Amino acid sequence: MQVPQWVIETKRDGGTLSKDEISDFIHGYHQGQIPDYQMAALAMAIYLKGMTFEETAFLTQAMMDTGQCLDTSTLTRPVCDKHSTGGIGDKVSLILAPLAAACGLDVPMISGRGLGITGGTLDKLETIPGFRTDLNEEELIDVVRSVHACIVGQTERLAPADKKLYALRDVTATVPSIPLITASIMCKKMSEGLDSLVLDVKVGRGAFMESMERARDLAMSMVRVGKEMGTHVTALLTRMDEPLGRTVGNAVEVQESIRMLQGDAEGPLWEVTRELTALMLASTPLQPDVESARNAVQEALESGAGFMCMKAMLKAQGANPDICENLDRLPAASQTMAFSADASGTVTDVDANAIGRAVLVLGGGRMKAEDAIHPGVGITDLIRSGEQIEKGAPLFTLHHEGGERLAKALELLQDAIQISPEPFTAPDILLETITS
Amino acid sequence: MQVPQWVIETKRDGGTLSKDEISDFIHGYHQGQIPDYQMAALAMAIYLKGMTFEETAFLTQAMMDTGQCLDTSTLTRPVCDKHSTGGIGDKVSLILAPLAAACGLDVPMISGRGLGITGGTLDKLETIPGFRTDLNEEELIDVVRSVHACIVGQTERLAPADKKLYALRDVTATVPSIPLITASIMCKKMSEGLDSLVLDVKVGRGAFMESMERARDLAMSMVRVGKEMGTHVTALLTRMDEPLGRTVGNAVEVQESIRMLQGDAEGPLWEVTRELTALMLASTPLQPDVESARNAVQEALESGAGFMCMKAMLKAQGANPDICENLDRLPAASQTMAFSADASGTVTDVDANAIGRAVLVLGGGRMKAEDAIHPGVGITDLIRSGEQIEKGAPLFTLHHEGGERLAKALELLQDAIQISPEPFTAPDILLETITS
Repeated sequence: MQVPQWVIETKRDGGTLSKDEISDFIHGYHQGQIPDYQMAALAMAIYLKGMTFEETAFLTQAMMDTGQCLDTSTLTRPVCDKHSTGGIGDKVSLILAPLAAACGLDVPMISGRGLGITGGTLDKLETIPGFRTDLNEEELIDVVRSVHACIVGQTERLAPADKKLYALRDVTATVPSIPLITASIMCKKMSEGLDSLVLDVKVGRGAFMESMERARDLAMSMVRVGKEMGTHVTALLTRMDEPLGRTVGNAVEVQESIRMLQGDAEGPLWEVTRELTALMLASTPLQPDVESARNAVQEALESGAGFMCMKAMLKAQGANPDICENLDRLPAASQTMAFSADASGTVTDVDANAIGRAVLVLGGGRMKAEDAIHPGVGITDLIRSGEQIEKGAPLFTLHHEGGERLAKALELLQDAIQISPEPFTAPDILLETITS
Repeated sequence: MQVPQWVIETKRDGGTLSKDEISDFIHGYHQGQIPDYQMAALAMAIYLKGMTFEETAFLTQAMMDTGQCLDTSTLTRPVCDKHSTGGIGDKVSLILAPLAAACGLDVPMISGRGLGITGGTLDKLETIPGFRTDLNEEELIDVVRSVHACIVGQTERLAPADKKLYALRDVTATVPSIPLITASIMCKKMSEGLDSLVLDVKVGRGAFMESMERARDLAMSMVRVGKEMGTHVTALLTRMDEPLGRTVGNAVEVQESIRMLQGDAEGPLWEVTRELTALMLASTPLQPDVESARNAVQEALESGAGFMCMKAMLKAQGANPDICENLDRLPAASQTMAFSADASGTVTDVDANAIGRAVLVLGGGRMKAEDAIHPGVGITDLIRSGEQIEKGAPLFTLHHEGGERLAKALELLQDAIQISPEPFTAPDILLETITS
C-alpha cells in the first residue's frame, strides 16, 4: 500500500490518483487503518483540486467494493432505479416506482431520509400504517420479484464506507464537492446491480445545486461515471425554485402521490414523474424511444395499472392497501389554517426555500439526523406560479400543531409567494437531459 | 465558539478568518474539543488557500497562548535568538550563541533535533560528555543570567499546540505551507520573550525551500508576523546548495565549531555566522549599524571572548570545558576513509543533498523521530566549490563503521562532487537580508 500522506500529497498538488492508490486508501479507511484525519485531508484536497471522471469512477468502485452488491440475478425484467438530488415537495419516487413496474420494469429502490429542508422518501412512506422500509436484501428482491417495485432504506451491507465518509464530510466542510457527491450517490446505486439509472438533478434555490452550471457538471459526472462502470445513466435537470406539486410534508405528500396514481395527474409534478419514468423505460429494450415511452407511461397511469402496482407494493411491504381509498387514516395535524392572498393577480413566485424551511420548523423535517418528525404537519393546496388568485382567496393550507412553531412558520411564509397584476407564464420545469 | 466546519468552510472558499475564529479553533484543538480530522481539513484548506500575514500572526498568537512564555524579566541585556530553517552541516548556532553573548547579548536559545537530511543542534551538543539540553525554563534563565548563552531543547510548556499540530501535518501532507511553517517557528520563538530574532532562511537543494521565491515568501511572512507581534525580526537568506563548513555529522561538527571559536574562522561558515550575529547585534541598541556590528563580532572572535563564553556555557550546562582542548575525547567512528578525486581541476559543485543523505545512511541522522543516531560518524575535511584539487588527492574523509551502511553511503557520494578543468568562482553564500 502507498504511504497515505503521499497519496494526499499527489492530490494536494493537483495530480491524478491511480486506481490502486484510491482503492487502497478507501479500503484502509473503511478498515480503520487510515485514520479520519488523513481521510479529511484527502477529502479537502479533492474538494479543492477535483478529480477526473476516471478517478471518480475508481473512487465509486472502491466504495462499492467495501460492501456487497444486491443479487438481482433472479430478476427477469430490466432492473432500474431513480435518484433525486433532493428538493422541496419531491414525491416523485412514490409515484414513479409503481408506474415503472406497471410499464414492465423491476424497481428495487433504495431511498433515504430527509435532512434540512429536503424531504425524504422513507419518512413519507413510513406515515402509512404498517409500511416497512427496513426489509433486508433478500426480502427486497422477493418483493420486486412478486410486485416489481419495492422502496426500502439503505442497508449496512451496501457500500458501508459511504456512510462513514459522509459523516466525516459533514463535519469537515467537504460535502459540496462534485466528485465526492458523485461517488457517494453512485456507489450505492451501482451496488444495486442496475441495468439503468435515471437521475433527477434539481436546480434552483430549493436545491443543493443553485446554478445550472454546477448542476450540469454534477449530472455529467454521474453519467460519465456510470458509463465507466458499465451502467446506462440518464440525468434530467429539473427546476427547483418552487415546491414540486401541491403539497409539502410527509403524510400530505403520500396523499398527493396516491391521488396522482388514481388519475389526478397534471402540472409540473406529473411532467417530471412522467419524463423520468419515460427516460428509464426508453433506456431499456422495452421501448424504442422517449416519445413512445412517454405514451406508455401515460397509458399506465390512465389505465390504473400504476395504481394497482402501488397497492400491490403497499401490501407486499406490510401496509393495508385500503389506505388508498381511506386517505383520512393517514396521520394528520390537529389544526389547519388557510393562508390568504393580500392582492389579486397572477402568482409570479413561490419560494421553495421559504416553504421548505416553514415545514421544517413546523416539525415536518429534521435539523439533525436523530431528530424525530411530525408526520402530519405540512402544506396542501399550494398555488403555483402562473396561476390567477383573487385577494382573500387561499394561497395554501397549513397543517400544524399551533404554538411557537406555527408563529415561526408564518413568519417564514410571509413573503414566500409573490403576486403581480401583470400576466405571467411559469417557466418550464424540465430543463435539460444529459446522457452518455 | 464558531461551529468548526463553518470556519473550515470560510478558509476552503478562500476567505479570511478572524482572530476569534482562529483562536477558538486552535484552543479547541489543543484541548481536544476539536478533533484531528477537523484540524486536518483546516490545515489542507490553509495549505491550498493561504493566509494573510495578519491571519498568520493570529495563528501564531493562538498557538503561543496554548502555553506559557519564558520569563525573561530578570535578564538585563537585550534578549535575542536565532533560528535556521535547516541545512546540511549547519552548525551556526553552536558558534553564534557564545559569540553573541561575548558581544553583550543574552541568548536563551531553544533548539531542535535533526530529521531526515537536516542535522539538529541538540544532537550535536549531546555528543559532548555531560552536556545537558534538558534544562527547564528556570534553569535556562539561570544559565543565561550567569553566562549569557544557553542552548536547550523544546519544553512542554512553550506552545504545546505546535507539537500536536506538527505531528498531524506530518501525516496529512500539510507541512510545506508558508503560514503553517511561519506559525510553527514563530509561536515557539515568540514564547521566548525576545527583543530580537534573526532567521537564517536556507535556499537550495540542501534546504527545505529550493527556490529563492519560496524562501523570500517564507522570510517575508516571518518578518511580517514578528512585526505584527511587536518583535524585531531579521531574515538572512543564505545559499544551501553545498554543506556549510568542512564537516557534516554530530561530533565532527562540534569539533569544527570549537575550532572556529578558537580562531580558525574562514569561508562560508564564518561568513554566515558573523553576518547573523552582526544582524542580531545591530538590531539592538548595542551597535549603531551592521558594519560596526560585524567588526564587534570579528573582535569577539579574535580576542577569544567568544571561545571563553563557549567554555562557560559548556560548564554551566554540565560538561567539562576542558573538552575544548581535548577534542579527541568526543565520540568517534571506529574507521576513517579518504575519498579521492578522479581528476584534477577546480571543484564546481558539492551536492549538499547527496552528502546529507550519505551521513544519514551512515547513521548520523534519523529517518523517524524515534531513531537513534551514531554521534561519531560523518564527513570531515570537505572540499568546497572554487577550490583546486589534484587527481588522487582527498575530497573528504569519511568517518564510518563499515558494512552495508558504508556501501550505501559511498554509492550516494559517487557523483556528489564535480570537478572541471575550467576556472570557477563559487557564488556568494549570503543572498539577501529581509527586515521590517
